[in-house]
Amino acid sequence: MPDFMRAMRLVEFGKPLKLQEVPIPKPKGTEVLIKVEGAGVCHSVVHFVDGRFGRIDVKALGLRIPVTPGHEIAGTVAAVGDDVEGVKEGDRVAVDPWIGDGTCHYCKLGEEQLCEHPIKIGENIDGGFAEYVLIPHYRYLYVLRNLDTVNASPLPCAGLTPYRALVRKAQVKPSEYVAVIGAGGGLGTMAIQIAKVMGAIVIGIDVRDEALKEIERAGADYVINGRGNVVEEVRKITGGRGVNVIVDTVGSNETLGTYIDALDKLGRYIILGLYGGDLTYHAPYITQREIQIMGSLTGNLSDFMSVMRLADSGKIRPLVTKVMRLEEANEALDNLRYARVTARQVLVP
Amino acid sequence: MPDFMRAMRLVEFGKPLKLQEVPIPKPKGTEVLIKVEGAGVCHSVVHFVDGRFGRIDVKALGLRIPVTPGHEIAGTVAAVGDDVEGVKEGDRVAVDPWIGDGTCHYCKLGEEQLCEHPIKIGENIDGGFAEYVLIPHYRYLYVLRNLDTVNASPLPCAGLTPYRALVRKAQVKPSEYVAVIGAGGGLGTMAIQIAKVMGAIVIGIDVRDEALKEIERAGADYVINGRGNVVEEVRKITGGRGVNVIVDTVGSNETLGTYIDALDKLGRYIILGLYGGDLTYHAPYITQREIQIMGSLTGNLSDFMSVMRLADSGKIRPLVTKVMRLEEANEALDNLRYARVTARQVLVP
Amino acid sequence: MPDFMRAMRLVEFGKPLKLQEVPIPKPKGTEVLIKVEGAGVCHSVVHFVDGRFGRIDVKALGLRIPVTPGHEIAGTVAAVGDDVEGVKEGDRVAVDPWIGDGTCHYCKLGEEQLCEHPIKIGENIDGGFAEYVLIPHYRYLYVLRNLDTVNASPLPCAGLTPYRALVRKAQVKPSEYVAVIGAGGGLGTMAIQIAKVMGAIVIGIDVRDEALKEIERAGADYVINGRGNVVEEVRKITGGRGVNVIVDTVGSNETLGTYIDALDKLGRYIILGLYGGDLTYHAPYITQREIQIMGSLTGNLSDFMSVMRLADSGKIRPLVTKVMRLEEANEALDNLRYARVTARQVLVP
Amino acid sequence: MPDFMRAMRLVEFGKPLKLQEVPIPKPKGTEVLIKVEGAGVCHSVVHFVDGRFGRIDVKALGLRIPVTPGHEIAGTVAAVGDDVEGVKEGDRVAVDPWIGDGTCHYCKLGEEQLCEHPIKIGENIDGGFAEYVLIPHYRYLYVLRNLDTVNASPLPCAGLTPYRALVRKAQVKPSEYVAVIGAGGGLGTMAIQIAKVMGAIVIGIDVRDEALKEIERAGADYVINGRGNVVEEVRKITGGRGVNVIVDTVGSNETLGTYIDALDKLGRYIILGLYGGDLTYHAPYITQREIQIMGSLTGNLSDFMSVMRLADSGKIRPLVTKVMRLEEANEALDNLRYARVTARQVLVP
Repeated sequence: MPDFMRAMRLVEFGKPLKLQEVPIPKPKGTEVLIKVEGAGVCHSVVHFVDGRFGRIDVKALGLRIPVTPGHEIAGTVAAVGDDVEGVKEGDRVAVDPWIGDGTCHYCKLGEEQLCEHPIKIGENIDGGFAEYVLIPHYRYLYVLRNLDTVNASPLPCAGLTPYRALVRKAQVKPSEYVAVIGAGGGLGTMAIQIAKVMGAIVIGIDVRDEALKEIERAGADYVINGRGNVVEEVRKITGGRGVNVIVDTVGSNETLGTYIDALDKLGRYIILGLYGGDLTYHAPYITQREIQIMGSLTGNLSDFMSVMRLADSGKIRPLVTKVMRLEEANEALDNLRYARVTARQVLVP
Repeated sequence: MPDFMRAMRLVEFGKPLKLQEVPIPKPKGTEVLIKVEGAGVCHSVVHFVDGRFGRIDVKALGLRIPVTPGHEIAGTVAAVGDDVEGVKEGDRVAVDPWIGDGTCHYCKLGEEQLCEHPIKIGENIDGGFAEYVLIPHYRYLYVLRNLDTVNASPLPCAGLTPYRALVRKAQVKPSEYVAVIGAGGGLGTMAIQIAKVMGAIVIGIDVRDEALKEIERAGADYVINGRGNVVEEVRKITGGRGVNVIVDTVGSNETLGTYIDALDKLGRYIILGLYGGDLTYHAPYITQREIQIMGSLTGNLSDFMSVMRLADSGKIRPLVTKVMRLEEANEALDNLRYARVTARQVLVP
Repeated sequence: MPDFMRAMRLVEFGKPLKLQEVPIPKPKGTEVLIKVEGAGVCHSVVHFVDGRFGRIDVKALGLRIPVTPGHEIAGTVAAVGDDVEGVKEGDRVAVDPWIGDGTCHYCKLGEEQLCEHPIKIGENIDGGFAEYVLIPHYRYLYVLRNLDTVNASPLPCAGLTPYRALVRKAQVKPSEYVAVIGAGGGLGTMAIQIAKVMGAIVIGIDVRDEALKEIERAGADYVINGRGNVVEEVRKITGGRGVNVIVDTVGSNETLGTYIDALDKLGRYIILGLYGGDLTYHAPYITQREIQIMGSLTGNLSDFMSVMRLADSGKIRPLVTKVMRLEEANEALDNLRYARVTARQVLVP
Repeated sequence: MPDFMRAMRLVEFGKPLKLQEVPIPKPKGTEVLIKVEGAGVCHSVVHFVDGRFGRIDVKALGLRIPVTPGHEIAGTVAAVGDDVEGVKEGDRVAVDPWIGDGTCHYCKLGEEQLCEHPIKIGENIDGGFAEYVLIPHYRYLYVLRNLDTVNASPLPCAGLTPYRALVRKAQVKPSEYVAVIGAGGGLGTMAIQIAKVMGAIVIGIDVRDEALKEIERAGADYVINGRGNVVEEVRKITGGRGVNVIVDTVGSNETLGTYIDALDKLGRYIILGLYGGDLTYHAPYITQREIQIMGSLTGNLSDFMSVMRLADSGKIRPLVTKVMRLEEANEALDNLRYARVTARQVLVP
C-alpha cells in the first residue's frame, strides 16, 4: 500500500473542494481502513461545503476544516486494527457514517445520529471523497453479500434517510398513500422504492422532465409534475381525501408552503430536506385534522443495518445515474447546485 | 316531567346566547334523555359562538343555528328509549359529545371525532346549556360510580382532550418532562394532572397570577410565569436539554412562536388550543433535532371511556372553579373571552 | 326477486349441512340484501359445524342453530333498506362479517371482533352458504372497484386474519424474516402475500406436496417441507438467528410444539389457527430471549377496509383453487377436514 | 487505596460463596473503579450460584468461575481511567451491569441485554459482592443526585426489569389494571410502584403474610392472598373482565398455570421470573381472546437511565428490607432460597 493518496478536501467554506495529497491512515485497535470504490454525492454536501443548512451555520456545529467530505461510502477493506473482529481484508463493505461518541444522552437512547459530540464521517472526520477512508470502529460496517460497491455507496444516506422516515417515523402501513416530494432526486428515488416495498401506493412529485422519468423508473404508481396543481391532482388520485404520508426531500419554502394541504386527516408530513425553508401553517388545521409534522435525520445503527439488508436482498436498488472520477467532485456538486442531475452521482476514486 | 325547558341558545353567530323556552325531547329507540346537572363552559364555545376557529369559518363546517351549545355534560338519566340497554332512569352519567355518523372513513377507523358528517352534541345538535339534553345513543354514556355530576361535567372535553394528547399522541413515558402552556385553564389543569398520573415531571406555564396559583393546585412540579424567559427557565430545569413534550392548550401566534424552542431533541409539540395562531418554524431545526408537531382533537369513544375511568377512580380530579346558573352562560363566556377565569366554570341549570 | 332461496344450513352440530328452502329476507333501515356470488369455505367452518374450537364448545359461545354458515362473502347488492347511504343496487361488494353490538366494552375500544354479544355473519346470524344474505348495516360493506366477486369472497377472513396478525400484531418491518406455518392453506397463501407486500423475506412451511407448490405460487422466498427438520433449515436460511415472526395458521400440538424454537430473540409467534392444540414452552426461554406469543382473531372494521383496499389495488390476490356449487358445501368441508385441498375453495350459489 | 480487597466469590456451582482476598483492579482507559456501598441480592443470583435457570445450564451460557456475583451495585467512584469523561472520583453512582460487546446483532439494535457475547457484571465479569468493582466503561454509570447508594443499589435489576416490562413491553396506559405476581419480592415491590406511577390500578398477589404487608407498603390498590381463588378475586375487582396486564416475577409452574386466566381480552402476560416453570395454555384461548405472552429481560441502557431518573426524582423508592454485611452473602441467598425475606436485602461491604 502506498503512503499517500488523493483526496478532494474542503479547505474553505463556500469555495470549491481542493485536490490534495494526504497520508493514508494506518488502522489501530478497532479501526478499519477502506479502499473507497464508490462515494455518493449527497445534496447535503452542497450545503455543508457552502457552510449553511438554512439558518444553521455549519461552523456553529463545531465542524473544523480542512476536512474530506463524503458520507456515502462503500469499498473494500484494505487493512484492519488489532481488535477488529468479523471483518477482514478484502471484504466488500458499506459504511454507517453517522457515528456518535457513545456516551451522550442521545447515544444512550440508541440514537447516535443525534449525538451531542458527533464523529460523523465526511463532516467531523475525513470522509469518502478520497482513495481511502479510516473508519473508527468495525461495528459501523455492513459486509455486502450481493450488492456491488458502486451501487451500495449511496445507501448509507440516500437509502437510510427515507428508510427511517418511512419505517420509524411515518410507520407506513400497506395500502396507505405516500407522496414523495423531490422524488427524482437521490433520496426521492429511494423513498419511492422503500414506500413501495412497504406496500404503499406511491405518488412521485418533481418539477423537471428528467426527474419525472426517474420517478417512473423508480416504480412510483403515480407521477405528478410539481408545476401543476399538485394538491388537486393528489386529491383526485386519493378519492378526495389526500395522502397519508408526505416525504419532503426538499424542505424549501415552496414545498413546505404548498404540499401540506395534500395530507389526509391523521396524515404525517416528514421533512428530510435541508434546503432551509420555513414551515408556516395555520395551527387550527393541524389540530382539527390531527396532522403530524416530523423531522427525520439520517438514521441510527439499527436503521442502517436494516436498510442495508433490504438492499442486499434485492428488494430495493439504488439508482446511480452517473459515475464520475474523484477529481470531478466539484462538477458533481455543481450538478446538484444547479439541478442538472437526478437520482445519485457516485465518485469512483 | 314538564313539556318545556329553559335553554341558552345560539341564535346568531357573534351575538350573546338567548334564553329560550323549548320542548323537552322524548327519547326513542337508542336515545337517552339526560337531566343536565353540570355543563362545563369550554373555551372553544367562545370560538363557536363567535363563528370562527381562526381562519376556519364555523358555517363552512355545516353548522346550523339556532342550536344549544354545551359539549361538556353530566347529569342524571331522565328517560330512555325502547332499545336502550345497560343504562336506566336515575343513573348518573357523563356524555361523550363527539359523535360521528358511524359510516364515514374516519368512523370506520375508530376515530369518530374526525367524522366527515359529525353529530357533535352542542355543535351539530342541541347541547348541555339547557335543563335537558337528548343523547342519540346510550353507548356514548359513562355511568359514574364515584364522581359527582358537577365535577364530572368538564371531563368529556377538558379531560378527554389532554388525555388523548398525552396518552395517544405524545405517548408520555415515566420521568419525561412535560410542559403545559395555558396551564391554569380548563384543559391546562387537566393536562397537568394527566401528565403527572403518567409519571411525568410537569412544568406549568401561564401568564396570570391567578392561573399560576391554579397550576400549583393542580400539582405541577414546576411553575413558570409566561411573561419571563420561558425557554431559558425550561432549559435550566431540564439540565439544558429542554422538555420531551409540550402541550399547547392555547395555539396563538405567541405560544406557537415562542415555546417550540423549549423542546428537547425528539420532542413532541402537541397543539390543542384553537386560538387561531399560525405555526412558523425553521424547517432545518425540525429535521436536525427530529422534532414532532402534532394536532390532537378531543378524542374517540375509547379515549373517553379511559379518561372517565381514570377520573372516576380518583386518580385525576376536575378543577371546577366556579358554579353558575344556566342564565349566566354569557357571563361565563365573557369571563373566558377576557381571561377573567382559571380552570373551569360549570353551569348548573 | 323470488320469495325463497336455497341455503346449506347447519341443523345439527356434528352432522352435514342440509339443503333447505328458506325465505329471502327483505332489507329494512340500514340493512342490505346481497346476492351471493362467492362464499369462501374457511377451515374454521369445519370446527364450527363440528361444534368445537379445541376445548371451546361452540354452544357455550351462545350460538344457536339452525343457521346458515359462511362468513367469507362477496356478491352484488340486490336491495337496500331506506336508511342505506353510499351503497346501491348493483354495487359489487365484499362483506365484513365480524359484527359486534357496538355497545360492549370491546366494541367501544374499536375491536368489534372481540364483542361480548357478537352478531357474526355465518355464526350468530345467517351467512353466505345461500343465494342471498342479509347484512345488518351498510357500513360493513366494501364496494369493489377492480376485484371480481369470486376472488374477493375469501378476503374477509382469509385475507383479514393474516393482515391483522402481520400489520397490527407482529408489526412486520421491511427485511424481517417471516415464516408461515400451514402456508399452502387459505390463510397461509394470503399470509405469504401480505408479508411480502410489507417487505419481509418469507419462508413458507407445509407438509403436503400440493401445498408446497401453492406456497411457490403465492410468492414465498423459501419453501420448507414440514416433514423435515424445519428449525434447522430456518436457522440455515437466517444465518443462524431464526425468524423474526412466525404466523401459525394451524395451531395444533405439533405446530405449537415444534416451530417456536425457530424464532430469533425478540421474535413474535402469532397464533391464528384454531385446531385446538396446547402451547407448552419452557418459560425461561421466553424471558431470556424476549419472545412474544400472541393470538390474533380475524380483525376489526378498520383492518377489513385496509385489506380490501390492498387487494382491490392489486397488491395481493386471493388464491382461489376450486369453484364449487352451493350444494357441494359438505364436500368442500370434507376436503378441508381430510386435507385434500390447498388455498381456498369458493362456493358459487 | 489498599492493594487487596474482600470478595464473596462463586468458586464451584452449587456450593456456598467463598470469602477471598483478591487484588483491587486499576482502571485504565474508559474504566471506572467503584467503592461498593450497596450490593442488592437478587433472586437470580440463587439460580446463578446453583448453576441453572430452569432447564438452561449456566455453564452452557459460557460463564466461567471463579467469579464474584452481584449485579445490583451502587457506590462511590474511587478511581477513573485516562479516557473517562463526565464522571469523577467521589461521584455517587449506580451501575448498569447488562453490558454487551457493542458489535453483535442485538447490540446494534440497541438491546445490549440480549448480547450474544455479553460482559454482564456479576456473571461474566466480577460483580458487586466485594469491596470494589471495576466497570469497563463510564457510559454504564448513572450519577446520583438525590438517592443514597444503599437504596439505589437494587435498582439496576429490581427496578430496571419491571420498568422495561411495564413501559416497553406491556406499555401500560393510565387506568389499566395491572396484577403483580410475587408482589412482595424485590422485583414485585418495584413493579407495583412503577405500575402506579404510570397511572395503573394495581393488584398485588403473594402467598406469605409478610409479603402481603410489603405489598401494602409498596402502595398497591388491592392485595390478594395467592392461596385463595385469585382468578375469581381478580374478576370481582375488575368488574368481571380481568386485568389488562400481569407481571409474573416468579415464573413457576404454579404461577404460569394459574394466573393467565385472570387476563382480560387483549391482555398481556409478562414473564420476568426465572424459577424455571413451563408455560402450558390452550391455544384457542390465546387466539379467541387475543392474549399476548411476553418475556422481558432486565433492560437496555436507555431503560436503565430512565428508571434511574425516575427513582432519583423520588417517584419510586426501593424497598430495602435488610442491610447485611458482605460476609453474610450466603445467608442472604438462603433467605431467598427458603423464602424467608421480602422486598430486597442489600450487602454493605
